[in-house]
Amino acid sequence: MNTTDSKVKKAAAAAKRDSFRLAALDERVRNGALARVIATLEVSRDAIIEENEKDIAAARANGLPDPIVKRLKFDGGKLDDVIAGIHDLIALPDPIGKILAKRQLDEGLVLEQATCPIGVVGVIFESRPDALAQIASLCMKSGNCAVLKGGSEAKHTNRLLYETIHAAGTEVGFPAGFLTLIESREETAELLGCHESIDLIIPRGSNAFVRYIMENSEIPVMGHADGVCHVYVDKAADIAKAVPIIRDSKVQYAAACNAVETVLVHADVAETLLPPLERELRVNEVVIRGTQRVRDIIAGVEAASEDDWRTEYLDFIVSVKVVDDAEEAIDHINRYGSHHTDCIVTEDDETAEKFMNLVDSASVYRNCSTRFADGFRYGLGAEVGISTGKLHARGPVGLDGLTTYKYRLYGDGQIVEDYAEGRRSFHFREIE
Amino acid sequence: MNTTDSKVKKAAAAAKRDSFRLAALDERVRNGALARVIATLEVSRDAIIEENEKDIAAARANGLPDPIVKRLKFDGGKLDDVIAGIHDLIALPDPIGKILAKRQLDEGLVLEQATCPIGVVGVIFESRPDALAQIASLCMKSGNCAVLKGGSEAKHTNRLLYETIHAAGTEVGFPAGFLTLIESREETAELLGCHESIDLIIPRGSNAFVRYIMENSEIPVMGHADGVCHVYVDKAADIAKAVPIIRDSKVQYAAACNAVETVLVHADVAETLLPPLERELRVNEVVIRGTQRVRDIIAGVEAASEDDWRTEYLDFIVSVKVVDDAEEAIDHINRYGSHHTDCIVTEDDETAEKFMNLVDSASVYRNCSTRFADGFRYGLGAEVGISTGKLHARGPVGLDGLTTYKYRLYGDGQIVEDYAEGRRSFHFREIE
Repeated sequence: MNTTDSKVKKAAAAAKRDSFRLAALDERVRNGALARVIATLEVSRDAIIEENEKDIAAARANGLPDPIVKRLKFDGGKLDDVIAGIHDLIALPDPIGKILAKRQLDEGLVLEQATCPIGVVGVIFESRPDALAQIASLCMKSGNCAVLKGGSEAKHTNRLLYETIHAAGTEVGFPAGFLTLIESREETAELLGCHESIDLIIPRGSNAFVRYIMENSEIPVMGHADGVCHVYVDKAADIAKAVPIIRDSKVQYAAACNAVETVLVHADVAETLLPPLERELRVNEVVIRGTQRVRDIIAGVEAASEDDWRTEYLDFIVSVKVVDDAEEAIDHINRYGSHHTDCIVTEDDETAEKFMNLVDSASVYRNCSTRFADGFRYGLGAEVGISTGKLHARGPVGLDGLTTYKYRLYGDGQIVEDYAEGRRSFHFREIE
Repeated sequence: MNTTDSKVKKAAAAAKRDSFRLAALDERVRNGALARVIATLEVSRDAIIEENEKDIAAARANGLPDPIVKRLKFDGGKLDDVIAGIHDLIALPDPIGKILAKRQLDEGLVLEQATCPIGVVGVIFESRPDALAQIASLCMKSGNCAVLKGGSEAKHTNRLLYETIHAAGTEVGFPAGFLTLIESREETAELLGCHESIDLIIPRGSNAFVRYIMENSEIPVMGHADGVCHVYVDKAADIAKAVPIIRDSKVQYAAACNAVETVLVHADVAETLLPPLERELRVNEVVIRGTQRVRDIIAGVEAASEDDWRTEYLDFIVSVKVVDDAEEAIDHINRYGSHHTDCIVTEDDETAEKFMNLVDSASVYRNCSTRFADGFRYGLGAEVGISTGKLHARGPVGLDGLTTYKYRLYGDGQIVEDYAEGRRSFHFREIE
């Protein structure tokens, strides 16, 4: 570190220095800190809501659109949700110190592969202040230092939430650098350059925002790009299952990344499926864009273009295509999809297995809604996010995504020369 | 893909298309392909050695340095080693299709987290032709397509090895794109730009080479930067263990990334350890660079500078520093080290645990040589490399480093709406 280093670079370096000590803290201390966070949030309840009202008033005065003002709101109910989430987090098993493998290499030489925190995680999120509390507590549970950058619209709420959580942690023995808040856009740019101190960046926000981060940092990024999800209705589909699955996958929350964007229909069932599907979607105000073969069966549908296959609508629109077999559906999904979540509706085991083996997506489903792709619904407890990358963590990411591992080797004076020269040899044995 | 795309971009896209089919191939087919590779290598034995002699002759004619000519050599013995390695690989458990978790989410809704290949791996390596055969067979075992770029000095050997292995794979049903060889420098630059088709780049070569790759590609890179490893001799050390551990960590193979570069000695044992250590290292022609406190005890030692603490000598040089306690040693290692492999020599359990918890390295050792940091010695079987990154894979990386996972969810028509509106609820239950 240099004396001319920026404030952010210094803060990130301080977080790095403190990360080693934080990583070594006991589960009891980490859970105790979370319990203390709950208590201090309760004490600061009124003050937090007051600060949030300042942000809301400023947002209204600045003419921010209603959906943003809504996301900004942090009232008593939101605080209750945050506190309930922290209670759940305390109850989750410790993600740190899990023995992934234990192996005797030779008499008296024992190798352990044990999970440990990643170190320093940079998290950049847009308007919602509950994200700050959620991410801070996930990092506390997993022993990671966090450098947080929230949206400037939420600055009053974020600052008080930060101060409250920071005070709670340090009171129970967390090092001061366990949590850092940065506030300006310029500081975000500096954060992206701190590859010596920051081990992982987690961006939470729009696709454009995630892409910007990925393109502007050498630090590994865990985030998700598009969610172009598919439902393929096979010739052996049960139509009574297919229609509700497609409806749910689209309308249960159309703006979610795991909502379906394209429905592929086997030619043999197109005439049976499409008319009831169209009725169901029309009732739910979903617009269909179809290929010519689709429009031959259900007239009055908009024409789909090549662009539709790559588009994440995040809206009440679905594109529909008739395919001649499961292979064509699989090829379409692998070519145009975003490898997020894709479903086959079929009663045929062999076709289902082919689909699930050949589709290269984080989540592959048989006969259920794509909307199940979510950390809570997967039973992971708290969710860090959904990763569309293939390395480190894929799909819905729980606390495990905030861990790495280290190898610990315990010996009694062993040297490699003895093995290289044949005086000793390895005797591998797994230890339960 | 565009008609104006380069040859490399087209080849990478073809590999991507074939990767889905390769990923779905059965273990028997993959092991059968490896058995076929052994058979075809045997048939081509004389031809491969002849091609290698052309490369060696060209290298000599071009005045390449002896160590490079030596690494280039691929004779009968090297071929035997490669074949023995493939036999071992066949015997290893299948890394693909391992169930990492199986969980009932609700009645009739079962989630599986299963390992699968990453997809397309780009491997760029310097002169040694055995690396081509080794990497190709690791990718075949793990169901990954590979795009290989070898050193131009080995082009004749590489080309025949590639043709032999490619023929063996396609004969048993691997898709043609499972293995691609690229040969020129310009093609390497193009490969680094293929982030739509290549999922992972593995560079094998010098640090400068690995850094160049990391700085010039948006594709995730699994490689290792420096190996600045330490041995810390604690005040509670058994000196009779410390001296051989340090000697072995340095001289057993001084050019290895897991060789020790800096020895830290607790002040209380400096006078006991340093004189016999100096004698032992002198016998082995190792030069010591020490701080003033070291030079006060063993005279005639070179002075160490700040730069020494960050230097990977890869040579018969070791820097030595006296520290006042274990904390100072830990701080030094976390500050100057490369988080590769670091060892404490001590008989004190508490200090050992503190060291192993607080040192932020992929491998942390007690009382054994740093040279044990190696995939084979860890019992991982074949080694992909050693990663100094913290995400995805850390430390010595076996076949598991060439896998990711996908979630497979099996339902019977379940939709999220039922859970969101309270008509159904999740009943998580782990399935053994």
